[in-house]
Amino acid sequence: MALGIGDDAALLNVRPGQQLVMASDTLVSSIHFPESATPRQIATRALCVNLSDMAAMGAEPRWFTLALTLPRDKAKAEWLAEFSVGLGHIANQYNLALVGGDTTSGPLTLTLTLVGEVPVDKALTRGGASIGDSVFVTGTLGDGAAGLKIASNKNSNCIDSDRLLQRFYSPQPQIQAGLKLRSIASACIDISDGLLADLGHICKASDVSAVIKAEQLPIAADVQQLSALDALQWALSGGDDYQLCFTVATGQLPTVEGWIEKGELDASRIGFIEAARDSINRVSVVDKNNLPLTIEKPGYNHFGR
Amino acid sequence: MALGIGDDAALLNVRPGQQLVMASDTLVSSIHFPESATPRQIATRALCVNLSDMAAMGAEPRWFTLALTLPRDKAKAEWLAEFSVGLGHIANQYNLALVGGDTTSGPLTLTLTLVGEVPVDKALTRGGASIGDSVFVTGTLGDGAAGLKIASNKNSNCIDSDRLLQRFYSPQPQIQAGLKLRSIASACIDISDGLLADLGHICKASDVSAVIKAEQLPIAADVQQLSALDALQWALSGGDDYQLCFTVATGQLPTVEGWIEKGELDASRIGFIEAARDSINRVSVVDKNNLPLTIEKPGYNHFGR
Repeated sequence: MALGIGDDAALLNVRPGQQLVMASDTLVSSIHFPESATPRQIATRALCVNLSDMAAMGAEPRWFTLALTLPRDKAKAEWLAEFSVGLGHIANQYNLALVGGDTTSGPLTLTLTLVGEVPVDKALTRGGASIGDSVFVTGTLGDGAAGLKIASNKNSNCIDSDRLLQRFYSPQPQIQAGLKLRSIASACIDISDGLLADLGHICKASDVSAVIKAEQLPIAADVQQLSALDALQWALSGGDDYQLCFTVATGQLPTVEGWIEKGELDASRIGFIEAARDSINRVSVVDKNNLPLTIEKPGYNHFGR
Repeated sequence: MALGIGDDAALLNVRPGQQLVMASDTLVSSIHFPESATPRQIATRALCVNLSDMAAMGAEPRWFTLALTLPRDKAKAEWLAEFSVGLGHIANQYNLALVGGDTTSGPLTLTLTLVGEVPVDKALTRGGASIGDSVFVTGTLGDGAAGLKIASNKNSNCIDSDRLLQRFYSPQPQIQAGLKLRSIASACIDISDGLLADLGHICKASDVSAVIKAEQLPIAADVQQLSALDALQWALSGGDDYQLCFTVATGQLPTVEGWIEKGELDASRIGFIEAARDSINRVSVVDKNNLPLTIEKPGYNHFGR
């Protein structure tokens, strides 16, 4: 950063041979987080969710601006101090500099815009999946939806509700996985709207279809325990996981499987890419006998949430 | 742009030898524009206000993201179509590409983040004003405040209220002036909060004071006509003008005066920089006899607006 906060705009030095990666995300109170969320939780979640877009592109996060709209009752030193601690903690962890923004009075809303760098032509995109590629996801699925359930309902009997609450408020953006997959994955997306919806975006951009094997989905034991009935649904379409879903061509499979075996990459193979079927249901799910499962809710639309 | 809307983030190609200039601004309904504003007026104003920050840095605008939060009653094709026309019109005019963003449901709020380019070490900043420099402003002052007055009160008797309304809803970002002043001005800022407040920012960053000659302030005839009583106040602290205020060292004066004479730059010399006096009132205003004028309202604070 050549010049930070305090002028009309920030001045930033891009390293030679790099392209910019730029994305914005808005979080609105009681839509994207419960009203009970603490300032620190709000800051953490906002930054982690935005960092996840950088991870999906295989980008190294560099700078961000924050536009914070605050109601008068929250525009106080205490609220802002706690918010800043949360923001600073995540920004430091991911080597990200706050370079500007805006504060306005109004209903609680945050928009973050992140800019990262990626070597020219090395970015991961949604458009490169091919027939025969394997489909992987990082980490476990359904944690975000289970965490939201707990955040919305304090009376949950889940034994380890702290972990899931934490997964909702501070999802871990998969920056390192994104960097590692840069020359390896054929397509990549982060799971914000649910696996079915987001893998559907890869399929659409790549003009292919995908088959997911339900029994291979990585679902954590505490999510199963919270609701064995809902766990599969949460994993497939719950949203808010911020794991990466990526595809790998056969030639690169040994590399990825090797990383997983050695513990260098936390990911699971969950299905494969096939030729495009119809343009509406691009992703199908099969049980262990390869019989199709009917999935009720194919992700949600942010606007109607 | 290497990859636009439709992936997790945009991919952007920065030209060699350029630094990035990045700024965010939020507009909230009924705070930054009246509720009566049309979708097209809102889009136009949002983009122009943000472009003004690029002008103040001497930057060439390149890309932007839009985070749009809309209440359900406005999330309709008609509203969005009119909004898009306004946005597209200004973006095309300034060669600016929409590269991403977010749409969410909630109270009407817009955050735009612009990224521009400036050759390395050529950006205009607030910090370079020196004792003896002349102070200039582009265009006329007080138009924005007069326009807001009209926008808030349709019964105005002003003859040419359309021009002033236009000045409020589509202030003209001084991009060309900013580019021209890049190797010439010693400091520069855009006037969003009023001349006194914004010139005060230059003085603070440069550790100097400034003297403004009231009779040299460029005030349009229709602003005088709307209220001879308020015109000076509007020009000094009304805000929303989005003209540039810049300082010029004596050695560069002939160049700037020459541009003004030839009509290549629409600007007026309104005062000079002197040694720092006190740290609170850095800008003073004098009448034609060089006697100090007392100014009641030194600009406003966005948060308390």
